[in-house]
Amino acid sequence: MSQPTVTNLSRVRFAAGFLAERARLVREVVIPYQWEALNDRVPGAERSGTVHNFQVAAGEKPGKFHGLWFQDSDLAKWIEAACYRLATHPDAALEGELDTLIATIAKAQLPDGYLDTYIQLVEPNKRWANLHEFHELYIAGHFIEAGVAHFEATGKRSLLDVVVKLANLIERTFGLGPEQIAGYCGHEEIELALIKLSRAIGEQRYLQLAAYFVNQRGAEPNYYEAEIARLGIKKLPPYFYRDRWAYLQAHQPVREQTEPIGHAVRAMYLYSAMADLARELDDDGLRQTCRTLWREIHARHLYVTGGIGAEWMGEKFAEPYDLPNDRAYAETCASIGLVFFARRMLELELDGSYGDVMERALHNNVLAGMALDGKTFFYVNPLQVRPAEARRRYDHTHVKTQRVPWFGCACCPPNIARTLASLAGYTHSVQPDGLALHLYAACQMNLTVARAPVKLSLETDYPWDGTVVARVNPDRPVSFALRLRVPGWCTTPEANLNGEPVDLAAKTRSGYLALEREWRAGDVVTLRFPMVVERVRAHSRVHHSAGCVALQRGPMVYCLEQVDNGAHLDQILLPQNAVLQASFEPGSFGGAVVITTTARRIASAPTALYTTTLPASEPAPLRAIPYALWANRGEGEMNIWIREC
Amino acid sequence: MSQPTVTNLSRVRFAAGFLAERARLVREVVIPYQWEALNDRVPGAERSGTVHNFQVAAGEKPGKFHGLWFQDSDLAKWIEAACYRLATHPDAALEGELDTLIATIAKAQLPDGYLDTYIQLVEPNKRWANLHEFHELYIAGHFIEAGVAHFEATGKRSLLDVVVKLANLIERTFGLGPEQIAGYCGHEEIELALIKLSRAIGEQRYLQLAAYFVNQRGAEPNYYEAEIARLGIKKLPPYFYRDRWAYLQAHQPVREQTEPIGHAVRAMYLYSAMADLARELDDDGLRQTCRTLWREIHARHLYVTGGIGAEWMGEKFAEPYDLPNDRAYAETCASIGLVFFARRMLELELDGSYGDVMERALHNNVLAGMALDGKTFFYVNPLQVRPAEARRRYDHTHVKTQRVPWFGCACCPPNIARTLASLAGYTHSVQPDGLALHLYAACQMNLTVARAPVKLSLETDYPWDGTVVARVNPDRPVSFALRLRVPGWCTTPEANLNGEPVDLAAKTRSGYLALEREWRAGDVVTLRFPMVVERVRAHSRVHHSAGCVALQRGPMVYCLEQVDNGAHLDQILLPQNAVLQASFEPGSFGGAVVITTTARRIASAPTALYTTTLPASEPAPLRAIPYALWANRGEGEMNIWIREC
Repeated sequence: MSQPTVTNLSRVRFAAGFLAERARLVREVVIPYQWEALNDRVPGAERSGTVHNFQVAAGEKPGKFHGLWFQDSDLAKWIEAACYRLATHPDAALEGELDTLIATIAKAQLPDGYLDTYIQLVEPNKRWANLHEFHELYIAGHFIEAGVAHFEATGKRSLLDVVVKLANLIERTFGLGPEQIAGYCGHEEIELALIKLSRAIGEQRYLQLAAYFVNQRGAEPNYYEAEIARLGIKKLPPYFYRDRWAYLQAHQPVREQTEPIGHAVRAMYLYSAMADLARELDDDGLRQTCRTLWREIHARHLYVTGGIGAEWMGEKFAEPYDLPNDRAYAETCASIGLVFFARRMLELELDGSYGDVMERALHNNVLAGMALDGKTFFYVNPLQVRPAEARRRYDHTHVKTQRVPWFGCACCPPNIARTLASLAGYTHSVQPDGLALHLYAACQMNLTVARAPVKLSLETDYPWDGTVVARVNPDRPVSFALRLRVPGWCTTPEANLNGEPVDLAAKTRSGYLALEREWRAGDVVTLRFPMVVERVRAHSRVHHSAGCVALQRGPMVYCLEQVDNGAHLDQILLPQNAVLQASFEPGSFGGAVVITTTARRIASAPTALYTTTLPASEPAPLRAIPYALWANRGEGEMNIWIREC
Repeated sequence: MSQPTVTNLSRVRFAAGFLAERARLVREVVIPYQWEALNDRVPGAERSGTVHNFQVAAGEKPGKFHGLWFQDSDLAKWIEAACYRLATHPDAALEGELDTLIATIAKAQLPDGYLDTYIQLVEPNKRWANLHEFHELYIAGHFIEAGVAHFEATGKRSLLDVVVKLANLIERTFGLGPEQIAGYCGHEEIELALIKLSRAIGEQRYLQLAAYFVNQRGAEPNYYEAEIARLGIKKLPPYFYRDRWAYLQAHQPVREQTEPIGHAVRAMYLYSAMADLARELDDDGLRQTCRTLWREIHARHLYVTGGIGAEWMGEKFAEPYDLPNDRAYAETCASIGLVFFARRMLELELDGSYGDVMERALHNNVLAGMALDGKTFFYVNPLQVRPAEARRRYDHTHVKTQRVPWFGCACCPPNIARTLASLAGYTHSVQPDGLALHLYAACQMNLTVARAPVKLSLETDYPWDGTVVARVNPDRPVSFALRLRVPGWCTTPEANLNGEPVDLAAKTRSGYLALEREWRAGDVVTLRFPMVVERVRAHSRVHHSAGCVALQRGPMVYCLEQVDNGAHLDQILLPQNAVLQASFEPGSFGGAVVITTTARRIASAPTALYTTTLPASEPAPLRAIPYALWANRGEGEMNIWIREC
């Protein structure tokens, strides 16, 4: 079992490289910056109020609660990120700041363990009363994740004690017992957090509590129907539109669910917990459900950028294949949730589909969520932006054409921070009989494989170049299987071992090349995944992208920006025979491969709104940049799907 | 001056034909059916409450007001339609029913002339207090139109007296005098109604009152800013999104407006009044403004169906060229308003652009608003429907996949009725020096041209066949110009006069062929407008229809329906060289031309969501039907813009 923990984050040291650079940015800029934001010290940013709320709840200062009812979770996610940073880069000042903050949180916690500053300060009579709308258990989940991270990073129990007390209160409160509440949270998160807690301190009962929350969800009679009857709620908010309890994945027992539905982040957190439980409890029913849901997402609900949750109202899944580009929601957090789900499925069964989607989501939708300077963020990640329409159409109200410093609902920025700060955990799995590599980035790994200390270094310019040199250095010769993901985007992979060609076809299963042998110091595996510019086409049911191609090279999806290609990107046509040139530009975006070619552009001569003549076009240069790096050069149009001619 | 009036409707008698058949349906089915709906006697239809409200206000029965604050206008529009029917097809029973109804209305009117059942029954203290939201003057306008229609159709003054009293109250109340309200209505309509009243009874002062409303609109300081300050309104409803007072065309003086903006029906009613005033007052500034607004609509805001107002939230104009097909609003009433505006521009200056758009809107968007049986209606007219997405997406909440019997907000059904019941008024203009024909339909006209009685008969199978034989039969030889619109869709028009070819190039100006001569009984003009199936392409800025063609034949725009072409219409491709066959099918839709060809269809083999291979396609039959006739055979997908290959 190799579920990543904070304690093993430090076993991977990243050298230079694209992901490493973003991880460094998170450590050095994003985490300190977000601390300022959470303390309301960033000029021009929306007020967070998060630290303030805890100080008020702790009696440290007077004042009123500020923000949304789930504001506490922003702080918990930030603590988690900060602890991941401490784990790999110890920092006494940051650790001290955390100590102070944790003392405040502990003071804010009620004697029985309850902790939720919104309920405590605003609606103290509503404890557990409105599970479908309030996020008490969701917040608890994030604090539990933070508490585990703090414990594992520092060895201190200060926050762990807080969250264990909270978890124990939840355990007493929820369940099918006569005095218990037979409910579950409207926003899943507590489930996966309890599993983490169970693993961290070896308490099986938290696993059982997680299983209760998963199994009770959607059971008949529906808990929420009774709850809204009790609350006198006649009409649900518009984000429940058409889905009702399916918005919360609570329309039927989760084991009967076969279609990803409802709020995408909620769904991903639930599915992540289900994958964890399937493994922990060897629950074949849950395993099958996870596979079915994964297959559906992968086959009918995934943006080429790794985004999910196409529908803006409710941040949720739309009809299969309904993947609009300009109105895309594709929330940063949903894509992060997809990474969580994929990572857990890789522990359940090694399959390249999980690794491929994890790579796609991380390198595109997730990274696009953060600016190159780490100070502004996207919540929503459209695949096409026309600023004038985005500002005017009501169905684009969710689309921002530029990243912003903070959000009133700021779930995404700290989510990016905690994900990138724990990047090491996504790179590999230690397996009973070996080691599997999922992501490629230049790094040095110090692992224990088959009970032997093994050093493994990866040399690569990934994602700009597909050559990866893996040097395996066990302390002593040791037999294990080294499993290397062969990316799904690569059609002509090659490998050699100590200079000898490897028969990939024979040795690759489910997208992983397995090299089983006795490894000795100095063994070298060279992987060659030639990166050519591919024209990706969407399924013909994705009418939004009909007749268009997206450019992809390696794991990176490309887009056009107005600053490079002029206004009216829709007028650009890509001839089927255009030769697409990829070149690394050290001066662009801190070093990136850009794609150029001679395309065609519909002539700008004014014409009538409707004509019977074919539009004339003329040659025009085209320059595409990685989608992850868009919107770093001022406002303008952006487009991924280019019409082919 | 030939502004159509009820008195001249009877001078045109339609023979058989497409438009005539729809007009007959309106007379025989729609008007009686809507009377039932207005009296809440249609099972399964949304309750109207309209007649009920007047009976309550008149003290004839107890009860409460039902419906929206502008519900009265539904009744007024129906009365107007019923009077147009009386004008051409006298009917004692209907006339008697109207007498009873008008007596009720007169009883409901307050002694000072005020008439608005919502205000009277629900918010009596709010008279004229909330002009930006309530529709008192809008309702008054519709009653004035109804009163004029009733007077001209029957010679009775019963309703005219009511509306004159109301108009006089408005005249006393509004204006720049010290005791007057310097405001204007949030929904334009009173302006064009006052002009009608002025013409009908020869009172110039109503024209001046209309001019006041037009000129005061948008003047600084803005009336509505003061109004909402007085009402304590901080936040406007979402339909004001981004536009604020531009939603009501009141963001700047109308003479300074250069872009169609805001609620499309409001805009059309305002522009119609402006065009009328420009002519009545020979106001060159207004004339120029009308031309500019027309040009903008025509060049950047018009659907190929003649629909306008693309944006669903607020039923309003979107960005130029932003014409989505599935989320189209394209309200039936907006297209009717466009017909009103075009018709008035034709009186201001004879230009084929106005006639072309009027023809396009009438034959497509307007007629699509009503089912073949005259009993169900569309309010919103999308150019593409996928029922599953329409039901699930929040930005499709406005889209109905099937017509419905009635609407809570039922502006459209009676608007269709009054437009089709007065079709005669749109066919021609009597000019000082002649006669201009705008629409072609088989009919017999009895007109007075150049002070001489002239009979003119049109023989044609328009819109299925482009040959029109016009037989001119003046009582005595008389010189005048006969101006015949040469449709913009026709590229090879031909004409002859008494068998002799006419030099169209020399004699056509601004889209009208002018034949100036002494006309004698038995003169025959034969027009040949060959109807070929055209592939219409949208401007390259209309990204929603990029790479696609719409099929048009004559004035009719065609669409694909699932019932003919199977599901997943997006998978159908039209080869550039496909030969499009048009054939008249007497048994389809009461006789219509349908278009068939062999197209291609993307093979239905399941594929991954994203691939790098070009999709395979195979030959598939294609059948397109007139858009005006869609949704008469059960629910299914519909699509106008077909991707070309």
